[in-house]
Amino acid sequence: MLVQPKEITGKGKTSMKRGELLYEGKAKKVYLTDDPDQVWVAYKDDATAYNAQKRGSIQDKGQWNNRISARLFQYLGEKGISHHFIKELSATEQLVKRVSIIPLEVIVRNIAAGSLAKRLGMDEGVRFSKPVLEFCYKNDQLGDPLINDDHIATLGLASNVQLAQMKEVSLLVNRFLSEKMGQCGITLVDFKLEFGLDGEGKLVLADEISPDTCRFWDKESGKRLDKDRFRRDLGDVEEAYHEIWSRLGGEAHV
Amino acid sequence: MLVQPKEITGKGKTSMKRGELLYEGKAKKVYLTDDPDQVWVAYKDDATAYNAQKRGSIQDKGQWNNRISARLFQYLGEKGISHHFIKELSATEQLVKRVSIIPLEVIVRNIAAGSLAKRLGMDEGVRFSKPVLEFCYKNDQLGDPLINDDHIATLGLASNVQLAQMKEVSLLVNRFLSEKMGQCGITLVDFKLEFGLDGEGKLVLADEISPDTCRFWDKESGKRLDKDRFRRDLGDVEEAYHEIWSRLGGEAHV
Ligand SMILES: Nc1ncnc2c1ncn2[C@@H]1O[C@H](COP(=O)(O)OP(=O)(O)OP(=O)(O)O)[C@@H](O)[C@H]1O
Ligand SMILES: Nc1ncnc2c1ncn2[C@@H]1O[C@H](COP(=O)(O)OP(=O)(O)OP(=O)(O)O)[C@@H](O)[C@H]1O
Ligand SMILES: [Mg+2]
Ligand SMILES: [Mg+2]
Repeated sequence: MLVQPKEITGKGKTSMKRGELLYEGKAKKVYLTDDPDQVWVAYKDDATAYNAQKRGSIQDKGQWNNRISARLFQYLGEKGISHHFIKELSATEQLVKRVSIIPLEVIVRNIAAGSLAKRLGMDEGVRFSKPVLEFCYKNDQLGDPLINDDHIATLGLASNVQLAQMKEVSLLVNRFLSEKMGQCGITLVDFKLEFGLDGEGKLVLADEISPDTCRFWDKESGKRLDKDRFRRDLGDVEEAYHEIWSRLGGEAHV
Repeated sequence: MLVQPKEITGKGKTSMKRGELLYEGKAKKVYLTDDPDQVWVAYKDDATAYNAQKRGSIQDKGQWNNRISARLFQYLGEKGISHHFIKELSATEQLVKRVSIIPLEVIVRNIAAGSLAKRLGMDEGVRFSKPVLEFCYKNDQLGDPLINDDHIATLGLASNVQLAQMKEVSLLVNRFLSEKMGQCGITLVDFKLEFGLDGEGKLVLADEISPDTCRFWDKESGKRLDKDRFRRDLGDVEEAYHEIWSRLGGEAHV
């Protein structure tokens, strides 16, 4: 499933070695490196949905998500957003800044879909007049529950300043990402972000930005080009991930 | 179950007549009166829990809740809180200002219990350093889901100003009610409020404040003196409601 790490190419350090497995998530493996401030992320083809009740595999997902994520982090960096991405290591691997992940999922929504549509009894596809922000407590045992600012404070998950900063950055990411995807003929419906604190305590965007973590709808046809194809057994799953990569300009870097 | 309205006593209008049934809820019936700005509320003995999956009846609950609610609204009024209560009509009935209920349940929590403990994986009984506020969308079909400020805005449930006002008043109510109950040897763990808009669009506290809508724990023994006795089949249910009334000084007004 996991492609063996290839020889490292490109600029920068070429001496980077993959160390011990730090943790294995549902979508990625995170390894230590020689540098205590950097980790080696290997994207997997494994797919899960509905709090891991549904499990499967999507061919080449690791590759497309690694590439898409790398490109989108680079793009956001150009716009002034601080992120963890450093460089691609192989088709399915990338080097990132090691951060201490804040156990929150920040969800930004432009159009009603998924859990929000269900929670509020809204039809999918309704556009909000302003983006809707949500915070979920990253806790698999509890099922990543929706929480509010008071819960975040009482659990000590983030300071007030960090929370305000996460909100501000998430709305900026929404603006930049909506524009980018729009240029590729894709509507950014919603997405999930994770933030972390680097060695100096600075807040940086982390984890991934991919069809696993965003809802992308084709502007013309409305066709879903994201993990909903897997969640809802809509077929053409692999094709959707590849399509997003193609729309972003394609071509592998590594 | 419902006590027939008795002759109206006390000060103020005595000509008030009970009109058509406006709506029947799980805990109360609301009737029109001669005055379009006033409704007649009859408290029932019916009890429901867990989104009405559990149903039952608690002897004399209508009487205790009517009396407790009346007394607590009067007390809050003395503290400067605008509320809907006008006067008691009988042991189980009261006259209130008719309002257009804002479809939100405002929950104020001082100590972890119930759905919060479950949602956040906390032990019941942990005191928060600051009160925790929650808003739930009053919608039985959706199961009264927890929502955040952005959801409230996008659904148009309340304006930003109304929302800020509800938060402020709820925290004030918490302060006053904690003090009052504390003087009666009771810890105010959490409670649910409903607000409405009167004929002039003014925000007023409405619905009820009773062992159905608050968690009351005996300060000494920790014994639960509220609807949790019914929810969790702890026995002594009727006694708990009566106990709260006695602690508040007892004696019927009507
Ligand atoms: N820069 C980083 N430094 C350290 N950890 C990171 C970084 N970026 C992401 N992670 C974490 O790597 C882990 C593995 O990612 P993966 O997406 O597979 O996790 P997951 O199974 O989705 O679990 P989770 O529910 O924690 O996200 C996640 O916990 C993620 O938060
Ligand atoms: N002053 C008021 N004017 C108009 N309606 C009111 C007032 N105070 C309370 N109500 C409403 O009266 C209804 C009946 O009360 P009850 O507590 O029985 O309802 P319920 O079954 O709990 O339903 P809900 O889930 O709507 O609270 C509720 O919808 C409540 O919001
Ligand atoms: Mg993840
Ligand atoms: Mg009610």
